[in-house]
Amino acid sequence: MTRTHSGNRSDEARPRLEGVLAPVPTPFLSDGTFDRTAFRENLSRWIEAGLHGFVVLGSAGEAPMLSEEEAVDVLHSAREAIPEDRWMIAGVGRHATRLTIDAARAARDAGADAALVLPPYYYRRVTSNSALVEHFRSLADAVDLPLLIYNMPSYTGVDLPTPTIVAMAEIPGIIGIKDSSGDLTKLAAVRHQTPNAFAVLAGSAGFFVPALASGASGGVLALANIAPTMCLRLWNAAQSGHWDEARDLQARLIEANAAITRRWGPAGLKTALDLLGYRGGAPRPPLSALPEEAQKELASVLMEAGLQMDAKEAQ
Amino acid sequence: MTRTHSGNRSDEARPRLEGVLAPVPTPFLSDGTFDRTAFRENLSRWIEAGLHGFVVLGSAGEAPMLSEEEAVDVLHSAREAIPEDRWMIAGVGRHATRLTIDAARAARDAGADAALVLPPYYYRRVTSNSALVEHFRSLADAVDLPLLIYNMPSYTGVDLPTPTIVAMAEIPGIIGIKDSSGDLTKLAAVRHQTPNAFAVLAGSAGFFVPALASGASGGVLALANIAPTMCLRLWNAAQSGHWDEARDLQARLIEANAAITRRWGPAGLKTALDLLGYRGGAPRPPLSALPEEAQKELASVLMEAGLQMDAKEAQ
Amino acid sequence: MTRTHSGNRSDEARPRLEGVLAPVPTPFLSDGTFDRTAFRENLSRWIEAGLHGFVVLGSAGEAPMLSEEEAVDVLHSAREAIPEDRWMIAGVGRHATRLTIDAARAARDAGADAALVLPPYYYRRVTSNSALVEHFRSLADAVDLPLLIYNMPSYTGVDLPTPTIVAMAEIPGIIGIKDSSGDLTKLAAVRHQTPNAFAVLAGSAGFFVPALASGASGGVLALANIAPTMCLRLWNAAQSGHWDEARDLQARLIEANAAITRRWGPAGLKTALDLLGYRGGAPRPPLSALPEEAQKELASVLMEAGLQMDAKEAQ
Amino acid sequence: MTRTHSGNRSDEARPRLEGVLAPVPTPFLSDGTFDRTAFRENLSRWIEAGLHGFVVLGSAGEAPMLSEEEAVDVLHSAREAIPEDRWMIAGVGRHATRLTIDAARAARDAGADAALVLPPYYYRRVTSNSALVEHFRSLADAVDLPLLIYNMPSYTGVDLPTPTIVAMAEIPGIIGIKDSSGDLTKLAAVRHQTPNAFAVLAGSAGFFVPALASGASGGVLALANIAPTMCLRLWNAAQSGHWDEARDLQARLIEANAAITRRWGPAGLKTALDLLGYRGGAPRPPLSALPEEAQKELASVLMEAGLQMDAKEAQ
Repeated sequence: MTRTHSGNRSDEARPRLEGVLAPVPTPFLSDGTFDRTAFRENLSRWIEAGLHGFVVLGSAGEAPMLSEEEAVDVLHSAREAIPEDRWMIAGVGRHATRLTIDAARAARDAGADAALVLPPYYYRRVTSNSALVEHFRSLADAVDLPLLIYNMPSYTGVDLPTPTIVAMAEIPGIIGIKDSSGDLTKLAAVRHQTPNAFAVLAGSAGFFVPALASGASGGVLALANIAPTMCLRLWNAAQSGHWDEARDLQARLIEANAAITRRWGPAGLKTALDLLGYRGGAPRPPLSALPEEAQKELASVLMEAGLQMDAKEAQ
Repeated sequence: MTRTHSGNRSDEARPRLEGVLAPVPTPFLSDGTFDRTAFRENLSRWIEAGLHGFVVLGSAGEAPMLSEEEAVDVLHSAREAIPEDRWMIAGVGRHATRLTIDAARAARDAGADAALVLPPYYYRRVTSNSALVEHFRSLADAVDLPLLIYNMPSYTGVDLPTPTIVAMAEIPGIIGIKDSSGDLTKLAAVRHQTPNAFAVLAGSAGFFVPALASGASGGVLALANIAPTMCLRLWNAAQSGHWDEARDLQARLIEANAAITRRWGPAGLKTALDLLGYRGGAPRPPLSALPEEAQKELASVLMEAGLQMDAKEAQ
Repeated sequence: MTRTHSGNRSDEARPRLEGVLAPVPTPFLSDGTFDRTAFRENLSRWIEAGLHGFVVLGSAGEAPMLSEEEAVDVLHSAREAIPEDRWMIAGVGRHATRLTIDAARAARDAGADAALVLPPYYYRRVTSNSALVEHFRSLADAVDLPLLIYNMPSYTGVDLPTPTIVAMAEIPGIIGIKDSSGDLTKLAAVRHQTPNAFAVLAGSAGFFVPALASGASGGVLALANIAPTMCLRLWNAAQSGHWDEARDLQARLIEANAAITRRWGPAGLKTALDLLGYRGGAPRPPLSALPEEAQKELASVLMEAGLQMDAKEAQ
Repeated sequence: MTRTHSGNRSDEARPRLEGVLAPVPTPFLSDGTFDRTAFRENLSRWIEAGLHGFVVLGSAGEAPMLSEEEAVDVLHSAREAIPEDRWMIAGVGRHATRLTIDAARAARDAGADAALVLPPYYYRRVTSNSALVEHFRSLADAVDLPLLIYNMPSYTGVDLPTPTIVAMAEIPGIIGIKDSSGDLTKLAAVRHQTPNAFAVLAGSAGFFVPALASGASGGVLALANIAPTMCLRLWNAAQSGHWDEARDLQARLIEANAAITRRWGPAGLKTALDLLGYRGGAPRPPLSALPEEAQKELASVLMEAGLQMDAKEAQ
């Protein structure tokens, strides 16, 4: 397989996986196809803001909405825009191990630095935790790319238990977890039972402060798409032990974060981007653009959080 | 697009959708690729047994485990084996409307008589019921193929409410529902609020008798793969008002049915097929073959249900 | 303890537990205390309508809202009003075995023919199924009163599995189950695995027809409070094999049933009674009377079901 | 009503509600009745250890297992043992507002400093959040005793949303919340949207550190019953900004905490007390003493956490 991109850092070159990463949305043109220009425009602004890295083809990126061909196209566009000193992590969850291997190889070929692996969940009621560990082992054996576990119970119905995560963390090549469960008891247990090199990342800004207080090294935050500067300030505050400031920032952003995740999902995120001067657009059906009433409500939520268009992000 | 198969019956030719249909498993060779021969062998036995039709690429068929190319391959093989007087229904659930349209067109081109549509569920928390109705409407508009709704809450986490199903049933081209929820209150309400031509099919043998008593016209039963004759007898008994006999048959089969669905899923179904002289084999990882202990337990469950290899199915 | 009432039939005298039973509401005076007069007035109408029996202090009767003293008072009032040829069944669920024994003894002393036992559920996450079986065994040993199991997952979060119910059914003194789960697969399995003398009763009119088709001998139906005649007609139709008629009746009543159970609970039931000329009144806070808008909606649901005041119940 | 105890501090006297409180178990004699002596012995050790206060009749105290008379007895015994400079908080959840008022008055008369109010949950599916707010308002109006909200979704199935908690916090007399949900996003939002005087307490040691980092002022920790000194050290560490030490302590105790809560409940807690030289004994049936195998496992979990009998609690 040819490598047409930079990326895929060797172990020596790779910086610690920490800080604030954004799970980036995938914009579409009015005919519904991938809007490469808008995608790269957004990325260049987030890079300039100083975000530590990006998850491409995550839940916020409408990954399940794309064909395999489109997914590869998005990954290539991302790598062209993302410099080597920032993480590019590719979402690669599929239901079969063999399809996941194919997706991870495509991600590596597109220059991703790591893959974020959603565990298979359709047959969750008849899939044992040890089968899930084997899934990750097969994947790590087959593909030469660092892997992150993606625990996302609200979408998948699978909430990986601590011993399963710990067993996965022992597999060479598995370098961390993005945990969107919000279960801080589990996050602390995972942090305690895995080596320091295993990165524990909060999956939402809603619990970023307590996650950092519990030993997380960063977060993959949808909020970072619309408030990169404030998310970085929050992270820096926590890093330097200014918990009160971190807490205040998080509290101030909590409604905006809920609006673009739990409440309105990708449609909310894209509308917020449009309101703030980024390139959002419509999600793919059956997801649909926010109705006008909801748009107004979202605008006022953003305003209250100190986020507004044409102004620099609030300091 | 070329049509290389028969199938796709016109409205005049199409018989009422009723009776016992099997959601057929997809067998694999030892290298993990689709085993066409085994697939057709199984089908020919089920056809001979008199089943009214087949769902190809349903949950029992490990549909989420296949690539798009493999899915098309399976559909073509199925149509070659399934005669025109039996229903061939293709599972086509995808998360995006546009991908579902592509899948449904491929099913039509492969000669399917109808498509079984799993509603998009990954973003279920931010997808309204009316957006799901629109999804079905777009699909019906775009593809010239009869459509069935597939309500499967235990796998998808989406349990379509009655008014949503009724709204979908009003869309031309939507001809019925396979309801695997086991909610008989809903099934009766749907039956009552939709025209008679709208087919209500039970999604599991576990509640086939009460579903028929509530007005269902048939069932898509994983159990029909391993006990086609007994499922047909049960249906005939209910048709002729012999409820006691129908009830006895169902009770006798209830453990076997649980074993190949809720309890062990596709792995249980495939092992049962092997034990009964059909072609089962291993499921795709992360699904895994039953451990020996479970195989023995399954064998004894089948025995108690009067199902055994090399004997004709119990009369 | 003195016996001041009739009731407590000996085994010889006891008729088979079948037919239509009503779980009766507990009316309150404007000062919030038990309204004995209203209670007896309602009972006399339901007795006249021909209902086979009554559950006093069930979920519809706001049992958890009453003090122990009030509960005893309600039971005595009930027994005075309910003739010996109708079943009087007393709800006695408590969280501790010893408190349940006390409640069951009080029910026996008040003349109840049987007790309906909600399994303890507060500690459900740390209570094994075998501990629940022992709970029932201790109760049956300690109290000379026939017992019914009450499976009510939507309120308790406990859904008794089939083997647990079957184990309970083997305990002398346990004569049946009221199953409100709506899981017809389980109901059929329980029916199949227990002796005929063990009564299986549907816990809601929403699935009364499929339950009867699956071998239930009757139902404890909140709907019987507002539509006793139609519920009896439905039961008679099913008894004589007129399933189409039974199905039609159930379909016609399904919205009215939802309104007084799942949707509005005891407040809906009491408002419906007021609208139909019975004695309803307000439930105990925090349950609250229906807002005006909801009352209108309920009135129109009752109308559509053919239920109206001052007219005899629709024929 | 006569006041026979001290307690019921006036507002001036009351210290801020913070630090480490233990939800104490209720020991029973071999005949199943309340063991006053054992209860007071335990309390005197915990008081000596320096715990800031106690919840009597909480979930760990098997409150739902006691009759009203027994509950009053336990409260009186507690107040006799608990000095005025420690909080004595009485659990008073009942399903009806009027019964809750009675229970809260009995708690006040027994000398409790505050009541912990589990929201009514049996009818949760038909009880609006505003009805729950009214429940708390009626209670605060009727009883002259500070009230705490008890959010305990894993037992009750009710997870109070942030706006409901905020509305309750505005009612005079409602002084705080014990939140056992483990939802740190909510805890931070509640902290942010309520006045500082409103106490936010973590409901479990599993997430004590992130809760403190998010602004909680203390915790009601079952773990404090078996590891009071270590819980106090953890709290002190967090107070003085030594988050690493706090995190280590929590991680070390996490399995022991799970063992006496989620995993084995009151039976686990009581067995642990016996193993550590406190007075545990058997819980009330249907809860049952731990089987021998589980006892051994629990002993080894305690050992690994550095908790053992006859030695002072590990430093």
